[in-house]
Amino acid sequence: MAKEKKFVESITSMDEDFAKWYTDIVKKAELADYASVRGCMVIRPYGYAIWENIQKILDQMFKDTDHENVYMPMFIPESLLEKEKDHVKGFAPEVAWVTHGGNELLAERLCVRPTSETLFCDHYSKIIQSYNDLPKLYNQWCSVVRWEKTTRPFLRSSEFLWQEGHTAHATQAEAKEETLRMLNVYATFCEETLAIPVIKGKKTEKEKFAGASETYTIESLMHDGKALQCGTSHNFGDGFAKAFNIQYTDKTGKLEYVHQTSWGMSTRLIGALIMVHGDDNGLVLPPAIAPIQLMIIPIAQHKEGVIEKATELKNMLSKLARVKMDISDKMAGWKFSEYEMKGVPLRLEVGPKDIEKNQVVLVRRDTREKIFVKVAELETKVPEILADIQKSLLEKARNLQNSKTFSAKTVEELKELLDKTLGFVNAPWCGELACEEKVKEVAGASSRCIPFNQPEDAGNCLCCNKPAKATVIWGRAY
Amino acid sequence: MAKEKKFVESITSMDEDFAKWYTDIVKKAELADYASVRGCMVIRPYGYAIWENIQKILDQMFKDTDHENVYMPMFIPESLLEKEKDHVKGFAPEVAWVTHGGNELLAERLCVRPTSETLFCDHYSKIIQSYNDLPKLYNQWCSVVRWEKTTRPFLRSSEFLWQEGHTAHATQAEAKEETLRMLNVYATFCEETLAIPVIKGKKTEKEKFAGASETYTIESLMHDGKALQCGTSHNFGDGFAKAFNIQYTDKTGKLEYVHQTSWGMSTRLIGALIMVHGDDNGLVLPPAIAPIQLMIIPIAQHKEGVIEKATELKNMLSKLARVKMDISDKMAGWKFSEYEMKGVPLRLEVGPKDIEKNQVVLVRRDTREKIFVKVAELETKVPEILADIQKSLLEKARNLQNSKTFSAKTVEELKELLDKTLGFVNAPWCGELACEEKVKEVAGASSRCIPFNQPEDAGNCLCCNKPAKATVIWGRAY
Repeated sequence: MAKEKKFVESITSMDEDFAKWYTDIVKKAELADYASVRGCMVIRPYGYAIWENIQKILDQMFKDTDHENVYMPMFIPESLLEKEKDHVKGFAPEVAWVTHGGNELLAERLCVRPTSETLFCDHYSKIIQSYNDLPKLYNQWCSVVRWEKTTRPFLRSSEFLWQEGHTAHATQAEAKEETLRMLNVYATFCEETLAIPVIKGKKTEKEKFAGASETYTIESLMHDGKALQCGTSHNFGDGFAKAFNIQYTDKTGKLEYVHQTSWGMSTRLIGALIMVHGDDNGLVLPPAIAPIQLMIIPIAQHKEGVIEKATELKNMLSKLARVKMDISDKMAGWKFSEYEMKGVPLRLEVGPKDIEKNQVVLVRRDTREKIFVKVAELETKVPEILADIQKSLLEKARNLQNSKTFSAKTVEELKELLDKTLGFVNAPWCGELACEEKVKEVAGASSRCIPFNQPEDAGNCLCCNKPAKATVIWGRAY
Repeated sequence: MAKEKKFVESITSMDEDFAKWYTDIVKKAELADYASVRGCMVIRPYGYAIWENIQKILDQMFKDTDHENVYMPMFIPESLLEKEKDHVKGFAPEVAWVTHGGNELLAERLCVRPTSETLFCDHYSKIIQSYNDLPKLYNQWCSVVRWEKTTRPFLRSSEFLWQEGHTAHATQAEAKEETLRMLNVYATFCEETLAIPVIKGKKTEKEKFAGASETYTIESLMHDGKALQCGTSHNFGDGFAKAFNIQYTDKTGKLEYVHQTSWGMSTRLIGALIMVHGDDNGLVLPPAIAPIQLMIIPIAQHKEGVIEKATELKNMLSKLARVKMDISDKMAGWKFSEYEMKGVPLRLEVGPKDIEKNQVVLVRRDTREKIFVKVAELETKVPEILADIQKSLLEKARNLQNSKTFSAKTVEELKELLDKTLGFVNAPWCGELACEEKVKEVAGASSRCIPFNQPEDAGNCLCCNKPAKATVIWGRAY
């Protein structure tokens, strides 16, 4: 068992050094590797398989809400990026610029898309003429580039994969409805599929997307008490429509501007999965998203009938779950560690003694509980346990979030709380930028969102003590 | 019917101007639109839905042959691109260069990937140590950029979508086997799914991929008699392994270089679908790839019970095929033209008279044949007819290819043939570059491939009259 020990010992404990624990998991679970380009990553097969599952489920949710996929170019001419003033101000400092095609200097430089509002607007201005053309409900899956100074795999990288929805509507009411619809799709996905509880709310003016009139967000809490923005949904009003002249004739023949939205989620969600569910043995994946839901490991596989039995079980269970079997010549203990590191939700062990008793051993990744199950009951038990793991992970994450959610009345109290234990802190805010900036300065915390659930009376602002407009959730964020 | 006429008349006939006919279909079937960046395109929902079907089927074929998906960065540092000399010579003149990140000049410029051999090699050199790590069977779906001078949607654009497989093997024999395995996967996909017959063969030294030791290809013939390369599969031998130092220790502990392959197919296949199956009424899609396989159009839909019946049929048939129904207020004739333009394989018309007789009218897109079918027989008939359309399209395309395949003994004869009717021309070749270049110069034709099927005696070279090494297929190509 020497090898197994070494394998396990080589992970940093999360309490000791959370950042190192995180990158250890990324590396040892073979999710991603560093690339030769600064801040870029190679997403390895196991990491990419998680992303494929995210894509598959989210894409179906988009299609069920009548969205269609398209593909826009990866380049944006500088003049196009500049059309909406707030937007270019927000993104220009962090884009990569293409200046040469082959050996020729380009007449106009092109940026590699950091997001594609300007491209969708340019296209919409050509294809939208009348109210019959509305709504346009488009989405695209692609990679985007933002030249980041400090990077971490999945959480912040110069290039990342994502989806970006871009829609155009006849009225402001419809655009608002779409913005909230997609925020709810995101929240449902995070909670039901990723088992990550989120708080829905609105971003402050300071934190909203460059060019948006309103930004909504879902915020989650990581194991170390830091906040992570999991997805955002923006209402643009008619700001982009005016900048790009996207007009339609309504039923009375009158020219009107469209109202637009955009919304996105990214490979950052893989970072959230690690930091919400992981433990000192590695990744812990919710069954709904796990590339492998059940790993079969034969014990004493050289003995007669063991591999045959394991294969029989694999064939039987493959109809019910994503099942794999490892019959490599590594030691069983080594295999246990490896698939614990990879967060496979359920392990099935079967050896000569089990075969005699017509049973197997199931081991849950989340609780490490051993369950002896008769072969005849496997087809009932496996889906039941997988469903229970999915449910338990969400509950556990919700309990963690609740245990790290606090309230403060003043900025000093907020600072004291966060210095002691990182988490979400509810505190009243007057709505003024100056006070929001003071919280950043004094307590090192940013406003995460103005949650939808608000108390009847918010009280007085944590900084200026004037009547608060709302309770805001503050935290230190990734 | 005035509107319908106008709709149909606005397509250029393929015999009159094939190039304009092609771009008319791209535009009017709403497959793609031009973008604000030179040579780039917007892939619209209907075009992208075809690509999604291509991806879904091909991806499953890759997974069935044990390949895994990964994602590599979109940027390649100039020094990495330069590591394999033939490779950089082939691609450097047509790449887009990123020189600035935000406001800063980069220390080393980065090219936007035109293909990712160098990135995979860089990664493989890190993760391959022993024979246990082999083979590596990776694939990625992404977009690539090649700065093209003249562009056409889907056929040749500065940015396109594709998949690129990159594999590493212990031996040259395994690499060769993989190269041919994937060529066969491509050929099967083209024939069975896209109903496009292809000729499998090897590229000449002149036409092979930059850095490959052997390039295999599948070549197809378009309606105008021009050739189109549909996919290629490259055997790299250990050339890249030596340039990137990708070594493994074999079972005896000896250090060996790996042997590699790469293979790719792209959105160009959508261009092939248009040019192989399309007609003067628009696109014609094989059912296996069609986003909509059956379109239901109610006749006199304002009459009682018509929409109800159509909806009932839609629900019934949706279990068997990808079905949509159009109950917009456009005229039926207009709808007929629209879905003919979009190449929907089968149309179902149902009106008050049909309902009385308990029947519907099915209209095949490929033959425009009208078939009266009793409602009770629909569940049998629809899959039958769709299967027959799929089969007929392949046969028709194969007949076209055969009718445009010729033989020539001399380069003058080859020129005369191609000047009269474009097509594939079989002609013997000695294997010398000078003769291949002469064919290009005299007849304006390139070698498409050295087909696997070879005559016992190839005869004498079409240029120099020396004994031929093989029969080569020549043609004018996209």
